[in-house]
Amino acid sequence: MSRSSLKDCTGLHVVAQTPFHAEGTVDLDSIDTLSAFYYSHGARGLTILGVSGEQAKLTPQEAIAVARRFIRVADGHRIIVGVSSPSLAQLVTVTRDAMAEGADAVMICPPRGTQTDEDLMRYFAAVFARIGETPTVLQDFPMHSGVRMSPPLIRRLVDTFPQIGVIKEEDLPSVTKITRLRDELGDRVRILTGNNGLYLPQELARGADGPMAGFSFPEMLSGVHDLFTAGDLPAAHDLFERYLPLLRYEAQGEWGIAIRKEVMRQRGALRCSALRMPGPVLSAVDKREIATMIERQNTDFRFDAGSAD
Amino acid sequence: MSRSSLKDCTGLHVVAQTPFHAEGTVDLDSIDTLSAFYYSHGARGLTILGVSGEQAKLTPQEAIAVARRFIRVADGHRIIVGVSSPSLAQLVTVTRDAMAEGADAVMICPPRGTQTDEDLMRYFAAVFARIGETPTVLQDFPMHSGVRMSPPLIRRLVDTFPQIGVIKEEDLPSVTKITRLRDELGDRVRILTGNNGLYLPQELARGADGPMAGFSFPEMLSGVHDLFTAGDLPAAHDLFERYLPLLRYEAQGEWGIAIRKEVMRQRGALRCSALRMPGPVLSAVDKREIATMIERQNTDFRFDAGSAD
Amino acid sequence: MSRSSLKDCTGLHVVAQTPFHAEGTVDLDSIDTLSAFYYSHGARGLTILGVSGEQAKLTPQEAIAVARRFIRVADGHRIIVGVSSPSLAQLVTVTRDAMAEGADAVMICPPRGTQTDEDLMRYFAAVFARIGETPTVLQDFPMHSGVRMSPPLIRRLVDTFPQIGVIKEEDLPSVTKITRLRDELGDRVRILTGNNGLYLPQELARGADGPMAGFSFPEMLSGVHDLFTAGDLPAAHDLFERYLPLLRYEAQGEWGIAIRKEVMRQRGALRCSALRMPGPVLSAVDKREIATMIERQNTDFRFDAGSAD
Amino acid sequence: MSRSSLKDCTGLHVVAQTPFHAEGTVDLDSIDTLSAFYYSHGARGLTILGVSGEQAKLTPQEAIAVARRFIRVADGHRIIVGVSSPSLAQLVTVTRDAMAEGADAVMICPPRGTQTDEDLMRYFAAVFARIGETPTVLQDFPMHSGVRMSPPLIRRLVDTFPQIGVIKEEDLPSVTKITRLRDELGDRVRILTGNNGLYLPQELARGADGPMAGFSFPEMLSGVHDLFTAGDLPAAHDLFERYLPLLRYEAQGEWGIAIRKEVMRQRGALRCSALRMPGPVLSAVDKREIATMIERQNTDFRFDAGSAD
Repeated sequence: MSRSSLKDCTGLHVVAQTPFHAEGTVDLDSIDTLSAFYYSHGARGLTILGVSGEQAKLTPQEAIAVARRFIRVADGHRIIVGVSSPSLAQLVTVTRDAMAEGADAVMICPPRGTQTDEDLMRYFAAVFARIGETPTVLQDFPMHSGVRMSPPLIRRLVDTFPQIGVIKEEDLPSVTKITRLRDELGDRVRILTGNNGLYLPQELARGADGPMAGFSFPEMLSGVHDLFTAGDLPAAHDLFERYLPLLRYEAQGEWGIAIRKEVMRQRGALRCSALRMPGPVLSAVDKREIATMIERQNTDFRFDAGSAD
Repeated sequence: MSRSSLKDCTGLHVVAQTPFHAEGTVDLDSIDTLSAFYYSHGARGLTILGVSGEQAKLTPQEAIAVARRFIRVADGHRIIVGVSSPSLAQLVTVTRDAMAEGADAVMICPPRGTQTDEDLMRYFAAVFARIGETPTVLQDFPMHSGVRMSPPLIRRLVDTFPQIGVIKEEDLPSVTKITRLRDELGDRVRILTGNNGLYLPQELARGADGPMAGFSFPEMLSGVHDLFTAGDLPAAHDLFERYLPLLRYEAQGEWGIAIRKEVMRQRGALRCSALRMPGPVLSAVDKREIATMIERQNTDFRFDAGSAD
Repeated sequence: MSRSSLKDCTGLHVVAQTPFHAEGTVDLDSIDTLSAFYYSHGARGLTILGVSGEQAKLTPQEAIAVARRFIRVADGHRIIVGVSSPSLAQLVTVTRDAMAEGADAVMICPPRGTQTDEDLMRYFAAVFARIGETPTVLQDFPMHSGVRMSPPLIRRLVDTFPQIGVIKEEDLPSVTKITRLRDELGDRVRILTGNNGLYLPQELARGADGPMAGFSFPEMLSGVHDLFTAGDLPAAHDLFERYLPLLRYEAQGEWGIAIRKEVMRQRGALRCSALRMPGPVLSAVDKREIATMIERQNTDFRFDAGSAD
Repeated sequence: MSRSSLKDCTGLHVVAQTPFHAEGTVDLDSIDTLSAFYYSHGARGLTILGVSGEQAKLTPQEAIAVARRFIRVADGHRIIVGVSSPSLAQLVTVTRDAMAEGADAVMICPPRGTQTDEDLMRYFAAVFARIGETPTVLQDFPMHSGVRMSPPLIRRLVDTFPQIGVIKEEDLPSVTKITRLRDELGDRVRILTGNNGLYLPQELARGADGPMAGFSFPEMLSGVHDLFTAGDLPAAHDLFERYLPLLRYEAQGEWGIAIRKEVMRQRGALRCSALRMPGPVLSAVDKREIATMIERQNTDFRFDAGSAD
């Protein structure tokens, strides 16, 4: 396996939600409909158990149950499993179990407190000594993790650990970092972008291979990527901008995830929009605000390549 | 003075840039043209020496020189001076000097490490014991400061310290926090919103009194506020969304400030777009990206109430 | 159960090590000899799976296996299980399983990012809604967790949640905080002290009920407590000071835990001194340094109430 | 100047207190008696305006006034001026002014947020581009600054910037870091140790050149260094351990500085023990605790080479 298996990891990989029942247990059955929703709106693969998948709220057993279900209904799409953990033992356990279930790769963000280049090299040496050849997405997300990785350090990581096939780049400004990573790395790895897709057109222009992000209208993320790779930049920008008001609204941390789940519920992608507690709960005012925004999005557009359902 | 003098602090208060010469010294003369630019695009006042004003890079002497110049050309507009500092002595010195020069108010964000409600009450007790009746904007900006203040704590601060006349609200999600602050505080204080104006229409709908933010097209910020208060919500949203692609692009920390200064240079508002070093420097690729974005903004719109100069 | 069951939680409660085999698996058998060592040196109870127990490196299954073994050989001593986790689900699972195994109480430190008094009240409301009447030690350890709790907030927590029977106080300066907590709380809760026991005599003088700390010579911790409660302060200080050079040496974060395990191995309390990786590994120089320190401790003392085995 | 001028920077360099009047203004006159106290107790030089000197509470003008006075009464001793600041402009201004007044060197700790090796190299490139040949002490104090520097990175800094003549090493465990720095750097730089001197004997054994620390009994710090360099290790340890109870007590952040100032007041080294506000204020209980500790220290010792005044 290793890096080569991620060579064609381009296009939309949705950072998937985790469905819960209203009382907080995982709703495994809803994973089937949710997966179908993502795939029918352009996802070539899913990254499950990321920040947007509320990974940090699950026990390892729950995480594996969720992974197993997503894998069962993957239907040929790539499944990448977020396994980041302050506990290396837990990371290793979940990685081993997820790969045994048939996952394609794991995603790892170094844990808070891993601060120097030397510490980062050591951390990943310890990781890969334990998870071997597992194909890996390196997540660069300092706003969330507190860990910053410079382009030269990322190059050292990629040079040293052939398991790293994809960088999920969500340091800000991502555009300049993508430019620098392409200078350092050429095409040796894929670069997918996060940050809810908020800078997607510019990131693609800088050399990103696609979005690895969550959004309640994934057809925008896949559509922008497809139009961009087809060379139709004006249409790519038009499509992006039509959804930008909602996109920006969802880009508000965990509350944004609550918004996203509610919109997806309204679109039929989820039965229940509840986050696992503790977490934000939407008020009536919040829901009216969403309704207004979706109404504007549906009626007031200049480009209609992609119908919103 | 005190709170009452900030009673009419509504509408656009631009968080002003600080102009530098290419080699890094403060360009005092450019403050005149910059101020004129802000006022001609709808600013009722300015907040100088905020984060976007690169305050943390100035010495206290430079800060006062900057404040003096902005005040000299204020021409009846309100000047609020950012005085936050890890050093209370420095905060007090700059406050005293700025008020002596004729500033209308100061803005204070509690320093990193002020973590409990008790610590926050004590911090502001120490502050106001020294700066007396100075009208004050309380800045709630946890992403920048690391300090979180709950609505009940903000209420205690407002109840205890009548100097606080305005909350600059930029915790996220700002919309829910504004709703809660209005519940706690009613109309006793003004609430202005930051975060580069990225959530402005929703924040106004939740009860904010206007934007206290920086953007290279301040006519959008004032225009959205004016249309909103005039009750023309669709036009307010249209105006906002036309500028949203650039607005979101500028909302990228210090690099976004570099973008903003470059756009403002192109608009004639600044002679030189340099930030004081150390800080980001724009590449040719970055500048082409800006040009593309502005071109789209100028040609591809549905609402043309405000010409882009 | 609840608070009342912790009423007599005084005296030494050792924060126990977790024994590992050299290759990193948990060494359950060694828990028996380790427990015997602690109890024969004055421990009235153990706090297992704390920071010194390398809790964050275990999977929940491993944690429960460790807890089960410590409980099996508790021999009438109190077993408190550290269950802190960024994941409430994991905290709840481990709490439920540990209590089912026969644990006496759990210890909880609020997770990083729980920053305002309001957030802290909400966090513990969510916790206790799920773990019910479980007797609980509240750990106040801001250097580790980043969470600060003021004495008035701790009082509100104790007033609201009768499950909290003990405060493990390791904010610095702990002495002034203990004085304030006693003012706020009287004798309604027990206060045990951490920070490796580095301030133990002064903390007892301020009203602490005993140490809840780890040290390779637990007989010092129990001895100081016993001499202090017997009113023999000079002897308590003498005993403390004899061990202070090593005590201070062990008070160096995770490296100090490696030191402690090595000393305990030399004393026969552990078969293997390895920490679970990633973690510090002692060099030959480090081990010579320890040897020198122990030699001085054994030969050069003024008070010999407790033999060092 | 540059590195070579710090070649003989060995032995005790006290991190000096800043004297304040009770109402909070700087007490310049007391600097004379304080300096005399330090020099008569073995200080070869002083590091002024460090953390223990409450540097962050002073305005730049106050800082320069303090530096001028310490320099005026230096009487042939080395004066190193702490100039760390989040503002590079302020760092440069204070450096320039302090060196013009006759300071021997400056001490710089990189500012919070300087997180990758690349960022650190850039930061110091920006610093030295502005302060030129100024001899510099690099402060490695992650617990305070949040910035971690690995030994290889420190080597790169020393290789690149010949201004760096001394490392003030106070990362923990300092002993292993000193061993690694000596491996990386040989004798090219001096290594002085901080952390209140809490690990001094072991640090000297690892290759440190002396203490750069604050303690109310500086004769212990100089005495341990002198005995150690004279080869009398048992006496060095005896002297250290006699003062260890108080040393550990003073090692409690800003509250510890308040303790230190009070002890120094009692010893006649300071007229007033007040810290600049906001800061801790000692209670009657605190002062009794100090008195008890000093009494034990004075009466109950095995080694009396140094009288306690």
